[in-house]
Amino acid sequence: MAVYTEVSDDELAAFIADYDIGPVLSFKGIAEGVENSNYVLLTGGGPYILTLYEKRVAEADLPFFLGLIEHLAARGVPCPVPVHGRDGEVLRRLCGRPAAITSFLAGVWPRRPRPDQCAALGEALARLHLAGLDYAPQRANALSLDSWRPLFERCRAGADDVAPGLSAEVAATLSRIDAEWPRDLPRGVIHADLFPDNVFFERDRLSGLIDFYFACNDALVYDLAVCLNAWCFEPDLSFNVTKARLMIARYRAVRRCSADEIAALPRLAEGAALRFLLTRLYDWINQVDGALVKPKDPREYLHKLRFHRGVRDPAAYGIDP
Amino acid sequence: MAVYTEVSDDELAAFIADYDIGPVLSFKGIAEGVENSNYVLLTGGGPYILTLYEKRVAEADLPFFLGLIEHLAARGVPCPVPVHGRDGEVLRRLCGRPAAITSFLAGVWPRRPRPDQCAALGEALARLHLAGLDYAPQRANALSLDSWRPLFERCRAGADDVAPGLSAEVAATLSRIDAEWPRDLPRGVIHADLFPDNVFFERDRLSGLIDFYFACNDALVYDLAVCLNAWCFEPDLSFNVTKARLMIARYRAVRRCSADEIAALPRLAEGAALRFLLTRLYDWINQVDGALVKPKDPREYLHKLRFHRGVRDPAAYGIDP
Repeated sequence: MAVYTEVSDDELAAFIADYDIGPVLSFKGIAEGVENSNYVLLTGGGPYILTLYEKRVAEADLPFFLGLIEHLAARGVPCPVPVHGRDGEVLRRLCGRPAAITSFLAGVWPRRPRPDQCAALGEALARLHLAGLDYAPQRANALSLDSWRPLFERCRAGADDVAPGLSAEVAATLSRIDAEWPRDLPRGVIHADLFPDNVFFERDRLSGLIDFYFACNDALVYDLAVCLNAWCFEPDLSFNVTKARLMIARYRAVRRCSADEIAALPRLAEGAALRFLLTRLYDWINQVDGALVKPKDPREYLHKLRFHRGVRDPAAYGIDP
Repeated sequence: MAVYTEVSDDELAAFIADYDIGPVLSFKGIAEGVENSNYVLLTGGGPYILTLYEKRVAEADLPFFLGLIEHLAARGVPCPVPVHGRDGEVLRRLCGRPAAITSFLAGVWPRRPRPDQCAALGEALARLHLAGLDYAPQRANALSLDSWRPLFERCRAGADDVAPGLSAEVAATLSRIDAEWPRDLPRGVIHADLFPDNVFFERDRLSGLIDFYFACNDALVYDLAVCLNAWCFEPDLSFNVTKARLMIARYRAVRRCSADEIAALPRLAEGAALRFLLTRLYDWINQVDGALVKPKDPREYLHKLRFHRGVRDPAAYGIDP
């Protein structure tokens, strides 16, 4: 939960004057979102989301992200649409930070995703991947395999305090994954962070995908591997193979996967678990006093990593051979 | 900023089914409010506020608060109106906590109140006081003079670490205020916490008063004394007598004050400053690791207290003799 930047009513009124969306009726900071400051903005034109980009998002990447959601929305992906100011720009500055207004998406994110919601997620992910194929701008994945070792070195010293033996376990995993990592899979734009709190449902219908601020070019099925981690484990960390089977099947019904892609899933899922283990470990060890966001427990992803490590056959994910 | 209780989509849908406000389109936790968990709730019926009452609000007081805002709203005070469920009740339970839905008030709270907004606040405060005169339920002020000494005893040991000499200064102030406190002033329902973040403006018009969870029966002008502290000091803590003069004049234009009430203002303002100094001092000293709300600096109110201590004539507040 986070609002890092306090926007004054006067600053907001001046900012809004550059748009054709009517006067401000209300704006309230949202207690969700870790990276940026988000506000629900009600104007004469309806509800919008106002985002101020904080320092964890590189300003140079913002045109990639905003261009991407505009591109995807134009192709029917239910994601926020950036609102253009009178000068045509979508990105401007507020309180010294880059800021943008986007459309408001109805829906509620699922606190405990059901199997049918995992299926809907698989379909939406495939549609996102297809819609992104002709998006020309490129952005490297800043949290890909190459980044994991340097990230680990920056938190290695504290790892064993989080879980005994964690340092050696991560080091061994890094070496093995580096050797086994599938490097020639079909690539495209991936969301890279499509956790349940970034996906809205209206009743049973998937109504929105948000927070594209980790989007990048990478192996498409790596995105599916992230979602297997984020959607298919129960609160007790048991793996729900029904959810995985439905998610993957509906993904494949929309986007045909090669045999190599399917075979790669266990290692990609292990790698995705390692990626979130490492970033959570880093945030856990480097907690800031008075921080507004509680770091998430890295051990959840250690558990998930161990699950995928044991998977040598994608059938474990309910995939039909 | 705070959302203490995470409401799941399923729990929310079941809760909403008891109301005639249409299906849930969206709900987002609000990063404001210290006492409770607040959500912007969009339904087919429009926007609402969903509040879950956390442990700092006594459940036994909730009928007083909810009855009060319903009473005030019916008399034209721009405050949230509780929404009745199909069974007629306004208070029910969600996630194990008392919960209520209220109407959504348009407007934005002023980060730096202007003189004209201080004037509007004075007028709204007087209207609130008049509208509350025939509200029958009673609630004692849990943070009145009698509570300050026991509160001080619970944080006295750490006081000098916050400001050297603070402990002795507060002890002396308590003794003197106790002797000088005006005890026979006209009483009624007061808001008792009408800070700028509890007051909304749409453009120049005061459009809403919120957060009645400190409301109680006490001397009416004590409420004005709270507002002098909360609205009339500049960010550098200088006192803006123009704002005070306008606030008090507009208050008196709506509700006639006795000479005793006006004469009492300096001590009431000093007492109000002491009340916020003590609660902030307590929260400052008793900081909870991982708390979602940053405690406010108590020294701001030490400074304000010293200002009012020096005031012996209400003319210092711009009051015409």
